[in-house]
Amino acid sequence: MTNAAAVWVSLRKVREMRPLVHNITNFVAMDLSANTLLALGAAPAMIHAVEEAAEFARISSAVVINIGTLSPAWVTGMRSAAAAARETRRPWVLDPVGCGATGYRTGVARDLAALTPTLIRGNASEIMALAGAGATRTRGVDSTDSSDAARTIAAEVASDYGCIVGVTGEVDYVTDGSRTLAVHGSDAMLTRVTATGCALSAVCGAFLATGQDPLTATAHAFAAFGAAGVRAARGADGPGSLRVRLLDELYRLDEAALEAEVRIA
Amino acid sequence: MTNAAAVWVSLRKVREMRPLVHNITNFVAMDLSANTLLALGAAPAMIHAVEEAAEFARISSAVVINIGTLSPAWVTGMRSAAAAARETRRPWVLDPVGCGATGYRTGVARDLAALTPTLIRGNASEIMALAGAGATRTRGVDSTDSSDAARTIAAEVASDYGCIVGVTGEVDYVTDGSRTLAVHGSDAMLTRVTATGCALSAVCGAFLATGQDPLTATAHAFAAFGAAGVRAARGADGPGSLRVRLLDELYRLDEAALEAEVRIA
Amino acid sequence: MTNAAAVWVSLRKVREMRPLVHNITNFVAMDLSANTLLALGAAPAMIHAVEEAAEFARISSAVVINIGTLSPAWVTGMRSAAAAARETRRPWVLDPVGCGATGYRTGVARDLAALTPTLIRGNASEIMALAGAGATRTRGVDSTDSSDAARTIAAEVASDYGCIVGVTGEVDYVTDGSRTLAVHGSDAMLTRVTATGCALSAVCGAFLATGQDPLTATAHAFAAFGAAGVRAARGADGPGSLRVRLLDELYRLDEAALEAEVRIA
Repeated sequence: MTNAAAVWVSLRKVREMRPLVHNITNFVAMDLSANTLLALGAAPAMIHAVEEAAEFARISSAVVINIGTLSPAWVTGMRSAAAAARETRRPWVLDPVGCGATGYRTGVARDLAALTPTLIRGNASEIMALAGAGATRTRGVDSTDSSDAARTIAAEVASDYGCIVGVTGEVDYVTDGSRTLAVHGSDAMLTRVTATGCALSAVCGAFLATGQDPLTATAHAFAAFGAAGVRAARGADGPGSLRVRLLDELYRLDEAALEAEVRIA
Repeated sequence: MTNAAAVWVSLRKVREMRPLVHNITNFVAMDLSANTLLALGAAPAMIHAVEEAAEFARISSAVVINIGTLSPAWVTGMRSAAAAARETRRPWVLDPVGCGATGYRTGVARDLAALTPTLIRGNASEIMALAGAGATRTRGVDSTDSSDAARTIAAEVASDYGCIVGVTGEVDYVTDGSRTLAVHGSDAMLTRVTATGCALSAVCGAFLATGQDPLTATAHAFAAFGAAGVRAARGADGPGSLRVRLLDELYRLDEAALEAEVRIA
Repeated sequence: MTNAAAVWVSLRKVREMRPLVHNITNFVAMDLSANTLLALGAAPAMIHAVEEAAEFARISSAVVINIGTLSPAWVTGMRSAAAAARETRRPWVLDPVGCGATGYRTGVARDLAALTPTLIRGNASEIMALAGAGATRTRGVDSTDSSDAARTIAAEVASDYGCIVGVTGEVDYVTDGSRTLAVHGSDAMLTRVTATGCALSAVCGAFLATGQDPLTATAHAFAAFGAAGVRAARGADGPGSLRVRLLDELYRLDEAALEAEVRIA
C-alpha cells in the first residue's frame, strides 16, 4: 500500500467514526479549528471551564489543548481535561503556542507537557523552547528556527516526554524519538493565514482518536491536512480565499487528491 | 398573503428598524453571529461582563444568550442581562448549546430557562435534555436525536417554560406549546459549518425585536435564515465557501428569493 | 512624491520589517485582526493575561488595545501592556470600542486614554463620548454621529490626550490636534463586516511600528487599509465575500493599486 493509500484508509476511518474532539484552544483558533474538524468529518466541541472540562473529556474521543491565549483560569481547565484524558487512556494533543515568548508561557507549556500528552505539535521555535534548547527567542507565535534544524531537538523532546512530537516548517517532521518521518507538502501562503497550525493540531486529535499507532496517525493527519493546504493554495488569490478553499478541500479530500499530493519519507 | 410574503414583510421591518441585538454568546459563534446580524441588516453588540451587561441590555432591542463556551463569570453576566431583559419586557433568546453534555451545562441551561426567555432555540438533543427527557446523551454540541422525535418534547418545554421553542433538524419546528409550525428548507452541508445554529438564534433575536407575536417572528426568522442557507449551499464547493455565501445570501435576500424557498406549514 | 507613493514606501517598510504587533483585542475581532496583519505582511500575537502582557509588550514592536469585549481581568492586562509600551517608548494604539454605551466602558476607555497612547482610533460616537461631548448615546458599537461632525472633537481629544486621533466614517480624519488629514476611500458595505474598524487599528499598530512620525504613519495605515477595502468591495457579492476579498487585496496591495485609490488631503 502506498503512503497515500494508507492516509486514505485513515481519513476514511475518521469520517466513519466521526470522533468527538474536545478542544481547549485559543480565541483566535476556535473558529478555524471547529470548521476544520467539521469539514474533515469529525465533531468538534469547545469546552474549557474546570466545572466541566474533565467530565467532557471523558465522553470525547480525543482532547486537544492549545495555549495560544493563555490565562490562569484556563490552565486549570486544561490541566483537568489533560488529567482526565490520561486517566481514561484517551489520546491528547498539546499545542504549546508561543512557548519561549514569555516565562509564564514556557512554564505552563512544560507543566502541561509533563502530563503525558500523546502528541506535542508545534513549530521549531516552540519545540526548541520546550526543550530549553538554544538561545532562540520565540518571536510571538511564529517560528524563527527552521524546522530542519529542530529535527534533532524534536526527537529529543519525544524521548524526554515519551510522546510523539510533530514539528511544522517547510518540511514537517513527526517523530517518536527513534523513528522520524518527513512529511512534504506545504505552501508559504499558508503562513499568512492565522491558526492553521492550531487547526492541524485539532486534525491530529481526530486521527489519533481512530486508535491507530500514534506515530502513523500523526503523520497521516499532517499529510491529509498538508494535501488540502497545497491544493487550496493553488489558484488562491490571497490568504482570504486560501482559508475558504482550505475548508472546501478538506471536505472534498479523496483518494485521488491524496495520491497526487502525499509525500511521506 | 403567502407565507413568503409575510416573511418578506418581517425581514423589511428588521432592515428598517435595524435593531440593536445584544449577544452574550460563545467564542466560536461570535464572529459568525455578528456578521450574520450585519448581513441581515441588524446591529450586533457583544457585551458579557456583569459590570455592564444589564445596563447594555436595557438599551438594546433584544438579548441573545448562548451557553456554548461556558464559565461561572460569564453566567453571572448572562443572568444579569436576562433579568434586565425580563424587567424591561425586551425579548430574549436562550440557546442552550450542549445542554445534556455535562451536569454543569445542564444545570446552567435550566437556571437560565427559568428566567422566562421569549424563545429557547436548540437542536433536538438539547431541547430534550432541557426537559430531562429520554436517555439521550448529548454528543458535544451536535444533535443525536431527530428533530421530528423532539417535536412533542418541544411543545412540552414550551408549555413548561411558557415560551416559544424552536428546534432545528432536517425539518425545523417552532411551537408555543399549543400551535406548532414546521419550517422546511435546510441543507446537510450547513451542519459542516460551525455556529450556524448560534447565528440562527441571533437572527431570531433580530426578528423578535420588531415586536411581532413571538411565534410568528421566530418562524419567520427560521424561514429567512433557512432560505439564505439553502441558496448558499447551492453551488458551494464545500463548507468554507458555504459560510461565505451564507452571509452574501442573507445580505441579498429579497422577496423573490423568499418566494422561491420559504415553506412553512 | 505623491501621497500614494509615500503610502507605498510605508507599506514596503512594514513588509520588510514584519513588525510583531501585540494585540489585546476583543473576541469578535481577533480572527480578522490576526489575518489582516498577516495578509499585510506583519506578525500578529494575541496575549492578554497580566501574567505575561507586559513582558510580551516589551518584545513587540507595537501594542494595540481594543476594549470591545471588556471585563475587569482583561483591563488589568491592558493596563499592564500599555504601561510597558509607554515605559519602553513603543507605539501603542487604543481602540475605545463602544465608548459611551455604558458607564463602565466609558470609564475604562478614559482610564486607558490617560496612559498616553500614540493613537486613539474610533468612530465618531466613540471619540465624542471619550471627550464627554454631546448628548449622543453610543448605539452599541456603531457610530451615530457623522465623522465630519466629529472632526472638531477629534482635534480636541488629540490635544487633550497629546496623541494622534483617527476617526473613521464616510471620510476618515487623522489629526494631531493642530494638523488634520482627510483620508478618502471607503465603501458602505464595509460597515456590514464586523471588526473592520478593529482590524484597521491593528494595521495602524503595524505602520506605527516602522518609526515614522505618528500622524503620517496613521494616515498611511488608513489609506492602505481603505484602498484594500474599496478594491475588495468592487465586485463583492455581499459582506461574506467582501471579508475574504479584503484579506486578498491587503496581501496583493502594490504601488499601482495605491496610485489608483489613495486620496489624502
